[in-house]
Amino acid sequence: MKEELEKRGLDAYVSTQNTRYLSGTDASKFAIVPRNGNPVLICSRLEFERASRESSINDIRAFSSWKAPLRRDERVFFLEPWQLVAKVLSEFDAKSIGYEKADKNFVRKIKNAHPASYQSATEILQNLRMIKSAKELVLLKNSAKLAVLGMNRVAELVEPGRTELEIAAEAEYAMRKAGSEGTSFQMIVASGKNSWLPHSTTTRKKLAREELVVVDLGATFQGYASDMTRTFELAPTPKQLKILKIVRSAQEVALEKVRDGVKAREVDAAARNLISRAGYGKFFNHGTGHGVGLEIHEAPSLAPTSKDILRKEMVITVEPGIYVPKVGGARWEDTVVVKSKGYNQLTR
Amino acid sequence: MKEELEKRGLDAYVSTQNTRYLSGTDASKFAIVPRNGNPVLICSRLEFERASRESSINDIRAFSSWKAPLRRDERVFFLEPWQLVAKVLSEFDAKSIGYEKADKNFVRKIKNAHPASYQSATEILQNLRMIKSAKELVLLKNSAKLAVLGMNRVAELVEPGRTELEIAAEAEYAMRKAGSEGTSFQMIVASGKNSWLPHSTTTRKKLAREELVVVDLGATFQGYASDMTRTFELAPTPKQLKILKIVRSAQEVALEKVRDGVKAREVDAAARNLISRAGYGKFFNHGTGHGVGLEIHEAPSLAPTSKDILRKEMVITVEPGIYVPKVGGARWEDTVVVKSKGYNQLTR
Repeated sequence: MKEELEKRGLDAYVSTQNTRYLSGTDASKFAIVPRNGNPVLICSRLEFERASRESSINDIRAFSSWKAPLRRDERVFFLEPWQLVAKVLSEFDAKSIGYEKADKNFVRKIKNAHPASYQSATEILQNLRMIKSAKELVLLKNSAKLAVLGMNRVAELVEPGRTELEIAAEAEYAMRKAGSEGTSFQMIVASGKNSWLPHSTTTRKKLAREELVVVDLGATFQGYASDMTRTFELAPTPKQLKILKIVRSAQEVALEKVRDGVKAREVDAAARNLISRAGYGKFFNHGTGHGVGLEIHEAPSLAPTSKDILRKEMVITVEPGIYVPKVGGARWEDTVVVKSKGYNQLTR
Repeated sequence: MKEELEKRGLDAYVSTQNTRYLSGTDASKFAIVPRNGNPVLICSRLEFERASRESSINDIRAFSSWKAPLRRDERVFFLEPWQLVAKVLSEFDAKSIGYEKADKNFVRKIKNAHPASYQSATEILQNLRMIKSAKELVLLKNSAKLAVLGMNRVAELVEPGRTELEIAAEAEYAMRKAGSEGTSFQMIVASGKNSWLPHSTTTRKKLAREELVVVDLGATFQGYASDMTRTFELAPTPKQLKILKIVRSAQEVALEKVRDGVKAREVDAAARNLISRAGYGKFFNHGTGHGVGLEIHEAPSLAPTSKDILRKEMVITVEPGIYVPKVGGARWEDTVVVKSKGYNQLTR
């Protein structure tokens, strides 16, 4: 982070969206990283003790919008959040400041309180976060294990007569008991007419014969997300089987492309071309994958317009899909770590 | 909505944060409401069919950042999202435009593509959303019922030796099976040394004697959140019992203030004064409540600095808390509908 500030001639950086990545706790609102000196974490008063327990940043300051008696161990400023941010920037005597995506008024107020040169620099942490550290990879592996455990539970339950909701409830319960902090996104159990909606969720619809059932789920482990999709078949029609077979082949050819140095859009193109050649191009209406980390969707993007290059220790999904109205939808998704030669599959 | 546009002389409104409220589906990115004419919903291509099924807005248009073959039933523009928004504003010939909290670059690009007078008007929908419709109240009641069901499950399980995680897993499972779409926030089971963190979550810590256990949970029903907290006592010490008793009294006096026309900060003051007089003022470090609706935290705010006035058919929480390090924390929270005289408790 500091190297990046040096390179760009920034004296300090105000993070609004990456505070957990920078500090290890989600109890904070802002992290301010100076080029020289120690970073400061800013949180609301009610989060002060939790931030103190969880944060790897030691200098923690809390704001409170109203005057109130304080406990001896608290470090609270009776200021609005933006006032406290401006105060810290002044302490650092920062003349050139990078900041992340933030409300326009918030930035304007800080500028007025601490005049300096400000520039949006959201991409700094986006780029750093793409490459996972060894510690992050361990957490992502554990998160993926929970997703696999949930999918195994789904596999036990998929049969005609059961509701989508029931299957989701059981899989989430299994993941939660095994240590998941919650689902990394709203779980999808999409059967029959729901299966050709890429972002269906779950309904009280019962599974039936001659249906495809798309199940997309993920857990959260110490903040890190996992993501996995399988498509189940219930006495499928030949058309449904064909879709499923093509999707699986598309995932295989896409995965064969994954390695350090490859263009993300080449991985997408491998899947897309196979699906197009099979005549289903217009039924594949999303990208082939995305990065996974503290967020379920983060950089890089595997899509026709992507400019990202895959690098080792990136963690990505590969998930082609085909969605044919009145026939069925299928998607097959795994989360993998990019390696110098090939990849390591986390959701097996 | 249209009355508000009329009043403010706005020709159109671009919503980025309230699309579900305006359309009934979360499948969309933007809703554009003109003063005259019919609203337009904008979504990504992969959400087009889901939006069509779920939306109360009929004019739905999808964007795709890459050229791709289309299905016959899709209405897709090969444009970036901001280009499609600008295109719709031009169709409406809108000269004066209100918009919601949005990325600075996004607004700048739209302005360049469709020059007009733009103003931030986030408060319009914030104000409308505070007062719940009859239909919303039904959904909020159903959501609250699920929370009560979850809390009843917790009550069956709280005993020394069980882990916080286990209790959360069981309660979430019970709510999910009964129809919850997921928790409305990360469930809190905070025992012993976790109990005095207002925003703890759940850990593998086992419950033990001489502990308070704060349980804060909520379900989601058709998008609507619920929120409820109870504090359980396990062979408590006199100090712990005292805290719990004061918190419950504070909630009672605060609830007695709730009615149409009262200042939100007076409700807060009732709880805060009682706690301060009991000598625990510095251990109550958050507001007394907040609005609940599609979001778990929305307007109004019940805090010392709040300028909100409570109005009938607002739905709010009343949740004083006391958090004493090394002794224990307690919070007692209910969600209520404000009535012309008093309130109607949803989480009983």
